[in-house]
Amino acid sequence: MVKPVKVGIAGLGTVGSGTVNVLQRNNAEIARRVGRPIEIAHIGARRDNPNCDISGIKVSRDIFDVAEDPEIDILVELIGGTDTARELLLTAIGNGKHIVTANKALIAEHGNEIFTAAHHRGVDVAFEAAVAGGIPILKSLGEGLAANHIDWVAGIINGTGNYILTEMQEHGRDFGEVLKEAQALGYAEADPTFDVEGVDAAHKLTILASIAFGIPLQYSRVYMEGISRLTTEDVKNADMFGYRIKHLGLARDTGNGIELRVHPTLIPKEVLLASVSGVMNAIMIEGDAVGPTLYYGAGAGADPTASAVVADIIEMGRGLTAEHEERAPYLGFHADQMSQAPVLDIEDVTTSFYVRLHVQDQTGVLKDITQILTRHDISVEAMFQREAEADEPVAIVMMTHKVLERDMNRALDEIAALETVLEDIMRIRVESLDA
Amino acid sequence: MVKPVKVGIAGLGTVGSGTVNVLQRNNAEIARRVGRPIEIAHIGARRDNPNCDISGIKVSRDIFDVAEDPEIDILVELIGGTDTARELLLTAIGNGKHIVTANKALIAEHGNEIFTAAHHRGVDVAFEAAVAGGIPILKSLGEGLAANHIDWVAGIINGTGNYILTEMQEHGRDFGEVLKEAQALGYAEADPTFDVEGVDAAHKLTILASIAFGIPLQYSRVYMEGISRLTTEDVKNADMFGYRIKHLGLARDTGNGIELRVHPTLIPKEVLLASVSGVMNAIMIEGDAVGPTLYYGAGAGADPTASAVVADIIEMGRGLTAEHEERAPYLGFHADQMSQAPVLDIEDVTTSFYVRLHVQDQTGVLKDITQILTRHDISVEAMFQREAEADEPVAIVMMTHKVLERDMNRALDEIAALETVLEDIMRIRVESLDA
Repeated sequence: MVKPVKVGIAGLGTVGSGTVNVLQRNNAEIARRVGRPIEIAHIGARRDNPNCDISGIKVSRDIFDVAEDPEIDILVELIGGTDTARELLLTAIGNGKHIVTANKALIAEHGNEIFTAAHHRGVDVAFEAAVAGGIPILKSLGEGLAANHIDWVAGIINGTGNYILTEMQEHGRDFGEVLKEAQALGYAEADPTFDVEGVDAAHKLTILASIAFGIPLQYSRVYMEGISRLTTEDVKNADMFGYRIKHLGLARDTGNGIELRVHPTLIPKEVLLASVSGVMNAIMIEGDAVGPTLYYGAGAGADPTASAVVADIIEMGRGLTAEHEERAPYLGFHADQMSQAPVLDIEDVTTSFYVRLHVQDQTGVLKDITQILTRHDISVEAMFQREAEADEPVAIVMMTHKVLERDMNRALDEIAALETVLEDIMRIRVESLDA
Repeated sequence: MVKPVKVGIAGLGTVGSGTVNVLQRNNAEIARRVGRPIEIAHIGARRDNPNCDISGIKVSRDIFDVAEDPEIDILVELIGGTDTARELLLTAIGNGKHIVTANKALIAEHGNEIFTAAHHRGVDVAFEAAVAGGIPILKSLGEGLAANHIDWVAGIINGTGNYILTEMQEHGRDFGEVLKEAQALGYAEADPTFDVEGVDAAHKLTILASIAFGIPLQYSRVYMEGISRLTTEDVKNADMFGYRIKHLGLARDTGNGIELRVHPTLIPKEVLLASVSGVMNAIMIEGDAVGPTLYYGAGAGADPTASAVVADIIEMGRGLTAEHEERAPYLGFHADQMSQAPVLDIEDVTTSFYVRLHVQDQTGVLKDITQILTRHDISVEAMFQREAEADEPVAIVMMTHKVLERDMNRALDEIAALETVLEDIMRIRVESLDA
């Protein structure tokens, strides 16, 4: 009998218990795939979790005991957070363990350091579960599409945000009302900032962009804009123009630099990504050879995330005796071959815009606005003005052609300064998502 | 400088020239991913192809010269067909070459033999391009979802068929008319049997099912039904019930055996797969941990197919020095660990059905039909009868609950024998595609 792969799991929360369950439930089938059994040899957790059965498995209350255990081939980090997790990984790497982690914040913020340490020690670090849960998106991007120059990646990579937008779209409900419901359902954290302001999506986008373009992880360079200011009025206006509003993570190689941005985005209804509803995730990738592709599935949850964690374990188990150099590199590109392409400031990004203004019902307002746009070389593709009810402000909605964000900002500053224009100007970037 | 990976390409048709172009165009980026350059060292082709530049590359008119070339690490088979291709692969394997092929018919019909030979010689065989062109579906299924017990796979895996169905759906056009157009556009072969009767999809489904369930390749066991009998009347009726008709390849593990079937299928409009239009491909996979996932992209064409061919070359290049046992097995499961689960006869499959009959406008017809259905324990979920124009037959359309195909066949035989029922009974299987 061949030697089993010995796995140590640090953290027994939602994903940890899911990982134990999947490894136990599909034990025989997984062994048939790996060519040897996978054994959970050690679990580190402050407390047990009634959602999984760990009888017969060695358990330590100090997770560092797992990282120090000489029996362990692979340390699976599922504790979350960045400080202790970073220390745990560096300890395990120092002890020659391979690493599997689902920790997007850790990889996005400390990945460069962790990969350097792992590379020097000759061990592998896998993190499929860190982006889009069960969807094998990092493998698809870094291996499946490795023949391509990647042009762009656009993803619905936060399920809570997409759930809220879907409810606003399909049932005309308000942002605040749906957010409260999402919190009650357990989709959104009590502090929803990570989800609705784009932090979580920015972590994932950081990782996707590195693998797509071979650039170092640069979380601090991601432009972030949340969905909390969106109104049902904007959702309806977008619909009228033939668009849906999605909270996207976008990474694009412009040739002059890399765009890294998370923000609400109008996308055409006909694009498959626009049909992705509820808590589901989907990522679109455009490569120069393959053209547009899309990957869809559950982005969170115990079992879907465990699916990705265990896939990484299986891959390591298959190649456990292989040399470090024979494995696919952590970020798809070899560490000494990373690109130095700069990340663009958001003001240097060119997109089309949806703009919605509320103005006082006076003659000349539209003319003032149009003059400002013209002075900044912004051309308008479509515009409509909604008739005002008595004493209510008039809504002006327009779609622009492509324009440099810096020019749009200047124009909007001038428009905001007009006495007839009310304060709540909304502008949302538009992406056609074609090749 | 590290030694380059030396590739020999046999066949310089559409995919062959696409492969040369992608390897040349993305040469530097690919080397950064592999850790060493990839060099096209030898091309075997009966004639040159003006769509690619092969100046400076050794060319032989006899493809077997490439398989015999001691310089070559990897033989890329892109000649198509099964006889010569099989011989070429066995020759190259005998000479210790790794194999990359895009040949679905070859793998589906002779894969078991080829993998056995390759396993004994300790070489790798990769065939990502054989299924769904540029979509990295085999990698996603065999590696990305390796933690899962796969419940089912359902795919739009023939672009020509999907193009025809999309035109019938969106523009109410007839099958024959659209087929002629597809042939003129170059989507469909002059002999369209492979596409529209399901042979091409059955080849791909054979491969998908082996990787999903760890069963040997069993092309001869795939049930096949084409789309040539579909009418716009059926497409409209399906729409009225909330469904679209897609030509699906379906593989399901029932627990008592494996279903392998290619046929027109009603699927709910809300399912993402129903929104896949035109020549695009998409595959839905349901795993016990990950839940439903979907993979979408171009299923054919020079560049998309080359994307998958070159991805396989890159993977082999990365692990060129690794031991045979350290690589993922050909079909996802180890050769000595294949499942002996039987493939079910189509009559043993249980599905819901759409049934459309044309009957003479006489009292008692509906009662006769209902009695037959009841006698065979077939319960009807919805039914409608379209009012007859003067002298025209009446259309009766129904959706059944789930029923064993054998029972449905017997009932339909009896219904067809009724004097009042006309000959062209149409029945189409229905799949909800939920978990």
